[in-house]
Amino acid sequence: MTSFAENLNRKLEEKQNPSLLGLDPNLSYMPDHLLAQAKAEGKEGADQVASAFLAFNRAILTEVQDIIAAVKFQSACYEQYGPAGMNCLRESLAYAKSLGYVTILDAKRNDIGSTAAAYARASLGTSPLSGTSSGEIEYAAMDADAVTLNAYLGIDGIEPFLQACRVSNKGVFILVRTSNPSAGDLQDLNLADGRKVYEAMADLVAQWGESLDAGQDFSSVGAVVGATWPDQAKELRKRMPRQIFLIPGYGAQGASARDALAGFQAGRGGLVNASRSLMLAWQKEASRGQDFAQATRRAALKMRDDLRSAL
Amino acid sequence: MTSFAENLNRKLEEKQNPSLLGLDPNLSYMPDHLLAQAKAEGKEGADQVASAFLAFNRAILTEVQDIIAAVKFQSACYEQYGPAGMNCLRESLAYAKSLGYVTILDAKRNDIGSTAAAYARASLGTSPLSGTSSGEIEYAAMDADAVTLNAYLGIDGIEPFLQACRVSNKGVFILVRTSNPSAGDLQDLNLADGRKVYEAMADLVAQWGESLDAGQDFSSVGAVVGATWPDQAKELRKRMPRQIFLIPGYGAQGASARDALAGFQAGRGGLVNASRSLMLAWQKEASRGQDFAQATRRAALKMRDDLRSAL
Repeated sequence: MTSFAENLNRKLEEKQNPSLLGLDPNLSYMPDHLLAQAKAEGKEGADQVASAFLAFNRAILTEVQDIIAAVKFQSACYEQYGPAGMNCLRESLAYAKSLGYVTILDAKRNDIGSTAAAYARASLGTSPLSGTSSGEIEYAAMDADAVTLNAYLGIDGIEPFLQACRVSNKGVFILVRTSNPSAGDLQDLNLADGRKVYEAMADLVAQWGESLDAGQDFSSVGAVVGATWPDQAKELRKRMPRQIFLIPGYGAQGASARDALAGFQAGRGGLVNASRSLMLAWQKEASRGQDFAQATRRAALKMRDDLRSAL
Repeated sequence: MTSFAENLNRKLEEKQNPSLLGLDPNLSYMPDHLLAQAKAEGKEGADQVASAFLAFNRAILTEVQDIIAAVKFQSACYEQYGPAGMNCLRESLAYAKSLGYVTILDAKRNDIGSTAAAYARASLGTSPLSGTSSGEIEYAAMDADAVTLNAYLGIDGIEPFLQACRVSNKGVFILVRTSNPSAGDLQDLNLADGRKVYEAMADLVAQWGESLDAGQDFSSVGAVVGATWPDQAKELRKRMPRQIFLIPGYGAQGASARDALAGFQAGRGGLVNASRSLMLAWQKEASRGQDFAQATRRAALKMRDDLRSAL
């Protein structure tokens, strides 16, 4: 079977586009007609929003399937609408997979032991729980291809996810250096051995990734490396030669294509995320939102060309 | 209005018991009759498990309400059962609040900006979203009194939760030193300034907590400090004089009452968590599970007396 990293790289190559579509919907991003349509179907409250989100996601996924290979769903955006939101997330993930996208659940999970195992099942799982006295009981799980993780707790919190990588060809992206203004509060502190905290995290990630996909160029253990810090991305590539970088910060967060690609090697090894700049393209065009998916397509083509010319 | 920290300390004082009941259910923890009952009600799959979890939680919460003041719900245990699990979590939280418990959602959330705000609404929120063109739309939210957070991303990821603390008298517990074997992978690294990484985190937590509940003994910004490291807890108390410690590791994880209380000052300032040792008391008694809640009560009384005698 094909590893997560291999599958992702092949699909990125096919599209000649390292863009990662971020579907992180927000009520204020929804075109009016989608909310009106959900209401006309008798949906109210969280059900109405979740229904609009699903229609929004489906239209965009359909529209850019020939140009973008991978999509990231921000779990919080769905969780805040409770069970209706979680159902929307599941259906959006399943629809993306049916169109051939590589799917990433951005959940930044972190815990230990049986709890980490539960998060691994919730995010990456498909298989049934068994062995109870009442017989086999299936549980709901998102079945994403990969999930983002926070490794402040060390390997204990990561290992249950690596198990899913080994058994089911899943992937993980571990936070190393984030793109937000206060990332340095902890990540940039100087260690006694001369490294920064985020460099120590990078070394751990590289080490944990060694146990997967031996002999291949890239490991299915990836790293989140903010694009607003291109010099750091170059340094981090040296520490993590086999990690695929998930790179936030391009577009709405201000990083240029050149910044975003700083950690690439030979045109490979990264995914450049854009969420708001793609989802909200229709608002920038002063459109009333009827053609929101086409507006996203135009923005996605522009982003692709911008990245291609900088590669 | 009363701050989270003030309310929690008052209730702990009333019960003279720093125990924190952890309701982190797992399918293998369920007595057979609860699963059979859910099945008899026509429930299947995740619905069956979620229904058993809810009956389990309700019975235990009812049984120990006179001796325990605070309860922690491990989000992953519910999330893995999808929307049915999330509904169970909401109903369990609401039931616990109706009995007067202080409720903590153990979700270890971490993200930035609008996503952190979404997590804050999902975990601590109650109020409706408004201002859309379709009118006011309520969203589902857990309305816990407090939530656990991971601050690897710095203050950007914490601030939206502090806002909920200020506006709605909520609380947070930020991971400082965890109780798992690999906690030291990152947390114990030596910084150039002589501190450990977890001590730097403690200093950040103390600083962030300063902005809340001025003039009171304790801040509504608390800290997770593993009980398996009592010497560290004493040192961390010096760095975080105003933080309430959420202390995992007692019982099933091996820490003694004396270890667990190492960070207390004048008998106050901490919550000692026990999950498996309370939830699974019926299995230790070789019971068939019919009296699972009473078994939890017996274990909870033993824990309370153990902690009281060490205080």
